[in-house]
Amino acid sequence: MARNTHVPADLSAPPVTAILAKFVATHPARGWSDAVEHEAHRTFYNWLGCAIGAARHEAADAAIAAVQLLQPAPQASVLGRSEKVDMASAALVNGITSHTFDFDDTHLKTIIHPAGPVASAVLALAEKNGSKGRDVVDALVLGIDVACRIGNTMYPDHYDRGWHITGSTGMLGAAAGCARLLKLDEAKTQMALGIAASQPVGFREQFGTMTKPFHPGGAARAGLMSALLASQGFTASPRALEAPRGFVQVASDKRAWNEVTDELGQRFEISFNTYKPFACGIVIHPSIDACVQLKNLGLTPEQVEKIELRVHSLVLELTGKKEPKDGLQGKFSVYHGCAAGLIFGRAGEEEFSDAVVNDPRVVEVRSKVLATVDDSISESSVDVTAVLKNGERVHVRVDHAIGSLENPLSDQQLEAKFSQLVVPVLGERKARDITEACWRLASMPDVGVLTALCRP
Amino acid sequence: MARNTHVPADLSAPPVTAILAKFVATHPARGWSDAVEHEAHRTFYNWLGCAIGAARHEAADAAIAAVQLLQPAPQASVLGRSEKVDMASAALVNGITSHTFDFDDTHLKTIIHPAGPVASAVLALAEKNGSKGRDVVDALVLGIDVACRIGNTMYPDHYDRGWHITGSTGMLGAAAGCARLLKLDEAKTQMALGIAASQPVGFREQFGTMTKPFHPGGAARAGLMSALLASQGFTASPRALEAPRGFVQVASDKRAWNEVTDELGQRFEISFNTYKPFACGIVIHPSIDACVQLKNLGLTPEQVEKIELRVHSLVLELTGKKEPKDGLQGKFSVYHGCAAGLIFGRAGEEEFSDAVVNDPRVVEVRSKVLATVDDSISESSVDVTAVLKNGERVHVRVDHAIGSLENPLSDQQLEAKFSQLVVPVLGERKARDITEACWRLASMPDVGVLTALCRP
Repeated sequence: MARNTHVPADLSAPPVTAILAKFVATHPARGWSDAVEHEAHRTFYNWLGCAIGAARHEAADAAIAAVQLLQPAPQASVLGRSEKVDMASAALVNGITSHTFDFDDTHLKTIIHPAGPVASAVLALAEKNGSKGRDVVDALVLGIDVACRIGNTMYPDHYDRGWHITGSTGMLGAAAGCARLLKLDEAKTQMALGIAASQPVGFREQFGTMTKPFHPGGAARAGLMSALLASQGFTASPRALEAPRGFVQVASDKRAWNEVTDELGQRFEISFNTYKPFACGIVIHPSIDACVQLKNLGLTPEQVEKIELRVHSLVLELTGKKEPKDGLQGKFSVYHGCAAGLIFGRAGEEEFSDAVVNDPRVVEVRSKVLATVDDSISESSVDVTAVLKNGERVHVRVDHAIGSLENPLSDQQLEAKFSQLVVPVLGERKARDITEACWRLASMPDVGVLTALCRP
Repeated sequence: MARNTHVPADLSAPPVTAILAKFVATHPARGWSDAVEHEAHRTFYNWLGCAIGAARHEAADAAIAAVQLLQPAPQASVLGRSEKVDMASAALVNGITSHTFDFDDTHLKTIIHPAGPVASAVLALAEKNGSKGRDVVDALVLGIDVACRIGNTMYPDHYDRGWHITGSTGMLGAAAGCARLLKLDEAKTQMALGIAASQPVGFREQFGTMTKPFHPGGAARAGLMSALLASQGFTASPRALEAPRGFVQVASDKRAWNEVTDELGQRFEISFNTYKPFACGIVIHPSIDACVQLKNLGLTPEQVEKIELRVHSLVLELTGKKEPKDGLQGKFSVYHGCAAGLIFGRAGEEEFSDAVVNDPRVVEVRSKVLATVDDSISESSVDVTAVLKNGERVHVRVDHAIGSLENPLSDQQLEAKFSQLVVPVLGERKARDITEACWRLASMPDVGVLTALCRP
């Protein structure tokens, strides 16, 4: 009946739980380059914008309504809303909202969205405890390093099996970040990681439902509670990650332990974090980027007779929906993405609303987009030609879309994305004040000043 | 690097998430035999004794201290203690204490300890909501059926991989029980199971640490929250259990779907639940049972020159510690178990204390126990001969130890076990009152009366 196809247990695994615990507990504050420090601020800022942007989504409403049944103490803010709840519930809800639009950060090596679990847990705990911004940034960098290094150890096998790797490594990052923020010693940090190791969250079958964004939220909550439990003397296996019946070996046949130890404390995985400029799957991004460039060259939809795309076959396989009927279908339509880029010069959450997808002007431009498969073009590239009514042809080639590691969003572009998300929820003034606060996060004496700004 | 050894996805799995949801939402109240109804009361009573008995354990102290950091509302009781906490935290803590002594119930087909996750979640929710005992019993029977049927579907492969199956099926049982108690309809019950399916808890590497009992506690909490989320409109995949990237297929190569559907609503898995008479691993139980019988025949330790055991080889492999030094080692010593049985006529948590293990009288009797391997004797049996100083030989053969499915504890024996656990914590009067309340659980108008008795 059961075919036992498991790979053999690895009895010689290095003590990665202990190694990571020591790293988290003892690495010096701001023990990295200016570039890493700046990336940490960008990661935090992008995450915060996503969380605030989805604050009024029905997933947030449902999650908060459930949490309210616990009559939580008002310890930490639900970002973008007036409610305060206990810190563990805040970690949960902010983790959910930050991933609701699928617009958060991506560690491309593993497709982990690391800020969701880590920042949601760390900020909730920091607000409750009145922590300094410096400590929050340190916790974020170290927590993300833990989650992504364990992700590197198991990816792709772990993901291929069906785990949603963001939630199934995120609890470790959240535990690490919170342990750091609580200034736990090595031994207790090891216990925090151990308790968290028993609580991976999420399977890919949930994609398309509210339980997908629940995964980073649940991981944030589990990691925070693991650190609190460890702080009070709760114990776990000191080899919870690497033992034959520990998390990594049970959850993955790939166990590249060197991914934990290589350049630990020198190379930081947050350096490889990226931020989406468009609120849809990454495979459409080059095409949207090209159409935004056409608009920026001065072209108007009225001038255009047709837009010819040459794309990798995967683009049409995943996003070939010619006539999307609603916002969600729009996210799977390269045609819609191009129309949005040409008309609005952007493709944020708003451009994937039902209203915009069904706007006659958008429908018309969408019908002018033609796509041809050309597998000499890579998945991350596109070749676009706009044929104008006057016969002119305007050509744009995108090798690496904006938002990729090779062509990252500038700080200014991140700010524009943040405004798109936050202004409709909190208004322009607050969006500006939060932006300013985020860029100087590391020097804030108490992050409660920032979280107060995030409430209406 | 990664060897892909996964069994192929099963694309023809029946819709077990929907099937179980319909069952849980629509099966009639008390829709089973008197025997099942009585077993539900035994399961609940045994679970409650274990939870109260460990209320002062350091694992409970640490867990409660962590939970108190959330400043929880006093919604539900921590059993055996004066604290009240929010219902989700109560589910967590009571789930932890009920498994702390490894003395709780066992569904032998899967070695799931089903009451820990299910009863802990259901009672906390019931106390908060002032539920009737009838509804609690219904929720318990149905929740345990869900957890154990999913366990049957995956066992043994899922356990062999390294999952602690109690926590990795328990969240489903807890979600089912709580959904029933909340009277969720089929559709919302399906969502509750779906949300819970993303939150399996626990790996076997944690055995021997506090995180082992954390597993049923974490599962209880996760299941309760899943039901609350579903009640507020939170969504999940309707095929979260059976889809190729859903929980069961990711977590097990064995996928015996018929275990979900066979005799559903007719055969109840709670019928196969058992209760340990002795606070140690089940492999020593026949030997202890035999020595208790020797004492009950009137033998005193002073009369005995030696005790000869003939046991299966596994007994010495797992519990062959001749000279245990502390309580924990005592649990792995068949010699100590026999001495306790002969001297005290029992082997509860107290007989595995450091003091008793090092008591000179116990050490002396232990030295008189001799064990011989005889593989013609099954793992669940023992052949014991007491050789007396006067030359007499007294022989006891145990085929199925007390507490096994073939030779279950009587209600009276369950009461004796309950007293051993509860009297030291709450006193005799309360132990008696709780006992009485438990046997008439199904007819209680409000289970809050019972939980009030469980506080000092």
